[in-house]
Formats: sequence, C-alpha cells, structure tokens
Amino acid sequence: MAQRIGKRTVELTGVYVKSSAAVVGKKEGEGPLGKYFDKIFQDEYIGTASFEQAESMLQKTALKIATKKANVSYDDLDFVLAGDLLNQCIGSSFGLRDIGAPFMGLYGACSTMALSLGLGAILVDSGAANRVATVTSSHFCSSERQFRFPLEYGSQRPPSAQWTVTGSGAAILEKEKSPIALTRYTAGQIEDLGITDANNMGAAMAPAAYSTITKFLKDTETKVSDYDCIFTGDLGFIGSDLLYELMLRDKINLQPHHNDCGMMMFERIKQDVHGGGSGCGCVATVLCSYIMSKLREGALKKVLVCGTGALLSTVSTGQGESIPSIAHLVELKHCDC
Amino acid sequence: MAQRIGKRTVELTGVYVKSSAAVVGKKEGEGPLGKYFDKIFQDEYIGTASFEQAESMLQKTALKIATKKANVSYDDLDFVLAGDLLNQCIGSSFGLRDIGAPFMGLYGACSTMALSLGLGAILVDSGAANRVATVTSSHFCSSERQFRFPLEYGSQRPPSAQWTVTGSGAAILEKEKSPIALTRYTAGQIEDLGITDANNMGAAMAPAAYSTITKFLKDTETKVSDYDCIFTGDLGFIGSDLLYELMLRDKINLQPHHNDCGMMMFERIKQDVHGGGSGCGCVATVLCSYIMSKLREGALKKVLVCGTGALLSTVSTGQGESIPSIAHLVELKHCDC
Repeated sequence: MAQRIGKRTVELTGVYVKSSAAVVGKKEGEGPLGKYFDKIFQDEYIGTASFEQAESMLQKTALKIATKKANVSYDDLDFVLAGDLLNQCIGSSFGLRDIGAPFMGLYGACSTMALSLGLGAILVDSGAANRVATVTSSHFCSSERQFRFPLEYGSQRPPSAQWTVTGSGAAILEKEKSPIALTRYTAGQIEDLGITDANNMGAAMAPAAYSTITKFLKDTETKVSDYDCIFTGDLGFIGSDLLYELMLRDKINLQPHHNDCGMMMFERIKQDVHGGGSGCGCVATVLCSYIMSKLREGALKKVLVCGTGALLSTVSTGQGESIPSIAHLVELKHCDC
Repeated sequence: MAQRIGKRTVELTGVYVKSSAAVVGKKEGEGPLGKYFDKIFQDEYIGTASFEQAESMLQKTALKIATKKANVSYDDLDFVLAGDLLNQCIGSSFGLRDIGAPFMGLYGACSTMALSLGLGAILVDSGAANRVATVTSSHFCSSERQFRFPLEYGSQRPPSAQWTVTGSGAAILEKEKSPIALTRYTAGQIEDLGITDANNMGAAMAPAAYSTITKFLKDTETKVSDYDCIFTGDLGFIGSDLLYELMLRDKINLQPHHNDCGMMMFERIKQDVHGGGSGCGCVATVLCSYIMSKLREGALKKVLVCGTGALLSTVSTGQGESIPSIAHLVELKHCDC
C-alpha cells in the first residue's frame, strides 16, 4: 500500500523492476556505455522513411526486448505508460499503436522516464495493476527538426547546447519480487527562474532538480551520502555545475555523490557533444542499461534517479517566454530476494 | 484499495469529486449549456498577448475556481494532473507553473480529462494522495494554428470538421465523502482503423470509443441501459453515428442511452459548427459544469464519461500516416452522503 511520507514523497512497499531494455543509435553505441545497451542501430532511419518513424521504432524495439526479458507478452501488461518529446507525443503513440495494451500518454519532457516509473509504481502498488511497462525515447534528428532547425540547414551549435540522445529505454514493473525494488517517488513542481536560452537547457533545469532532490531528502530524513549515487537525467556539464552551486548554498556537497546521465552517455571532447547528452532517451537508456545492471548485480545498492525536463516549445520560445522546468525522482534499491 | 475487475477495469472504493469548475469562451457561453459555466470570457485573448497564453489563462482560472469551491489552497493538492493539445503541452505547463504543487503532465489528446480523472482516482484510492486536481483545456484559435491553419488565412472548413472548444475544466478528487463518487476506470488501448482525414476526427475516434465502452461493459457485466447516460467526449455528430453503427453490430442500441459533449456544446446549425465541438476542453467543460451539477443534485444517478482522443500531429499527417485514437472511460455515481 502506497503511503505518503513528509510533504511530497510516496513510499511503496512492493514494486520491483522485472526487466529493462535500452536501444540506441550509432553515436551512443560508440560512447563509454556502449557495451551495456541491448541494441545499437547503425542507421539513423532504422529502416523507416523518416526520423519520426525511426523514433517510434526505437520505442517499439525497447518495449519488445524488455517484455521478452521479463518473459511476458503485451497482453500481460495492465498499463503501458509512455511519452516523448515530439509534438503530440507521436514517438509513443505511433510506436506503440499495435500493442493492444491499455495506454497512458505522459508528457514531462526529459523527466518523462522518472514520471512514468513513479506513476507506474503507484499503479502496481495500489492493486490497480499487476504489471506495467514504462517507455520513453528521443532521437537526435527528430529533436533538432522539432526544437531547433532541420539538420539540412547545417546550423552551428553553441558551446552550451546539449546533444539529444537517439535511444529508447523501457522497464517492466511488477509485484513479484526481483533484485531491484522501486521504493520511493517524489513528483516535482514546476520551477521557472527566468532562463530564456533554449540552447542552455541545463541551466533551466538545475533549479527543478535542486527543488525535487531537496524535498525528497527532507521528507525521507536522508542525506546525499546515504546513496551510492544520485543520478540526474540530462543536466549535462553546465547544469550539473549549477546544481552543485545550489546545493552548496544549503551546505551540501553533492558532487562526490552525483553523476548525470547526460555526462555519462558521451565522451565530451572526443565525441564533440558540447554540454553533454540530453533528451527523454538520455536518462531512459542510461537507467535501463548501465544503472539497472549495476543495481541488479548489487554493485549499486541504493540510488536516486532524478529525471529533469524543460517544458518549453518553439512557440513559447518564439513568444519570448522563459523555460519552466520539472524534475521527478525515484529511489531504486538492490534487494537480495 | 483499487481492485482490478475483468481484464481492463479498475474498481475504486473511496474517491469523490469534491468540486469542479468550467470556464469557456464567448461562443461556448452562447450555446445551450451557457448557464452552467462558472465563467465566460468575451475576449479570445483573455487579456494576454497570444492565443497560447490565453489557453494557459483558461487552465489557471478553472483550477483557481475549483480549488476555491473545494475550499482548499494549491498547497493542499498532492498532485495536479494536467494536459492539453498544444505542442509540448504548454497550455498546462505555462498555465500552472506558478502553483507550486507536484505536477504530472499527461497527453491523451481530447481523452486527457478522462485519463486524468482515472489516474487521479487511483492516486487517491491508493493512499499516494489525499487530494488531487485534474485540469485540461483547449482553445479554438491556438488549435487552428497548431493543427490546421492560422485563422488569418481564412481557410474554409469542410462539413465534417469539428469546432475546437475554447475552455478549461478542472476537478478536485479526494477521499472525503461528497455527493459524486468516481467508482470505476477503464484505460483505452490505441486503435487505428486507417482513417487519414484530419478533418474527420469523429470517424477516427469512434473505434476507440467502441473498444473502451465494450471492454468496460464486459468487465463490469453491465449493459448500456444500466446508466442514465453514456457520454462520449467529442465524437460529434458524425463520430457518434459511427459509434452507434459499431455497437449495433453487437446488437446493442446505444443511441437512446448516449450523448456526446461535442453535440451538447453548440447548437449545430445556428452556431455553424459543422461536425460539433471537439478539443480537450470539450468534454472537460461539459463534464465539469452540466454533468457534475446533475450528478451532484441527483438528477443523474450513474453515468459513464468516455473521453476520446486522436493521437495525430501535423508531422504525422504530413507524412501520410493514419490517425491512431484512444478512449479512456470513468464511471461516476451520485451518492447520498
């Protein structure tokens, strides 16, 4: 039974990650985490006619592998929670239109994976579901076209820009015990400190990560050193530095206990990614490959995963609006069972 | 405690609609339901600089009135579930960025209100929340720009086209007993029968409504005559006729037990709306005004509300894709308490 602790946190007693899968593009496969991914696609179209269809194919493939690993069919899924960055979330709705399982569309920008895990865990814990799947994705080429310029324009990327990860992560949550438990969830509130530069997402999202992590630590009466690692989604190099600064104001030295999926995904200089990785697929693929495998084997015992999302659109940016951001956080534990 | 009944339905035992509010634009206010709305804005900009900001203002106002009616503050909301039709759901994220409450972004196109009520009810029933708010919106002018053409083009609308409702509905769900109970929820699966005409949404969405209503009736072992009314979201006149046809194949005469929020919102000929009303705000405003008030006073005892959404984008349409659709359904009951 789900239970609220403190002001913002939900504690869950019987939710486990049965399986997870991550599929990525060529560049991601060449990065430091390459060996952890389930599938690396060499062609950015993935055999389809458009980048958007390719992104749908990423989601389809990730969910297929995750269900196969869990030894379940789509018919065994009580809910599928999914979202992505594309207009009207077509990466998810077209990617998953054939599965025939109850579908819940989410939008949390790059925080969507953490949001889907938190919500999915409550659904399982509550008895509303025995098993749910969570899926998110992003694609470098569809995102550039969506949020910035079509690649054909050859636009220059400023040094603060981040590189949208081409990839999709999927996880299956269920009641039955397995080595990874999802134990707590804190939903974020929207934060907006007035950042207007859509090429500096890390700066826009750092206050949201700070807000959610701080609220979680307060609710649970824990400290950063209680966790093997606190992973943020895609603050990248600039956003992570800003998060350290914000935490230092509260006399908390986060840096030794922190890593960011956007910093982990690529080799910064060699792969020429400027601010680091980003996108719904960034935290989704790092979590559903490297982090989950380390939790499963017990090399990581207790971690926090804080997905961060920038809730802008090209229309809001064009109208001179600042960038509201949000961060959702889940606690994951290795358990011997 | 939430409990699954049948294959797809979740039964809830202690979730009540504490309050609801609906705010609309001028044209909606002039329709048959005008007297039920909490506020009618005469200016389509609602004092802002753009149609998108106006849509945000609709959400903000609806939530403000709903919380005031429930006699609670934003700080009393454990989660706010919201979504809309705009790219990256900026109607919600900008409309609700200042409320300081935990925020969950949803995307179910025009089914979002039913999705948010279903999910919100599970959150309350599970113990994860004591009180949640659900909000959705649409705006005729921002939708035309988003999905079809900017109004300045003066495009002609074909007879099957529906008129996007300018409005927002909000509801507060909590554990404490009040005269309207939310008792069951069935999440929809994505259906796609190959309709490609983005000016005939009713036809695209009818199979989704059929799928969800049929599954609900089977799971609950009830029949259409057990309900005072089965309301669909925004099938409009054409989509409703198609739904009747689909139900008749199963020897079920739905028409005498059915109404559609898109048919109820406007006077078809006099207000020149062609196929009827549509948009996230259509079912949201009809539900949160007329339907809720009839349930509260007991004039309606037991109803189903089936929100229907077309999961397309201009990109998918431009790429020649068909229109996947989804329908989420909630059961609402009057209770003497």
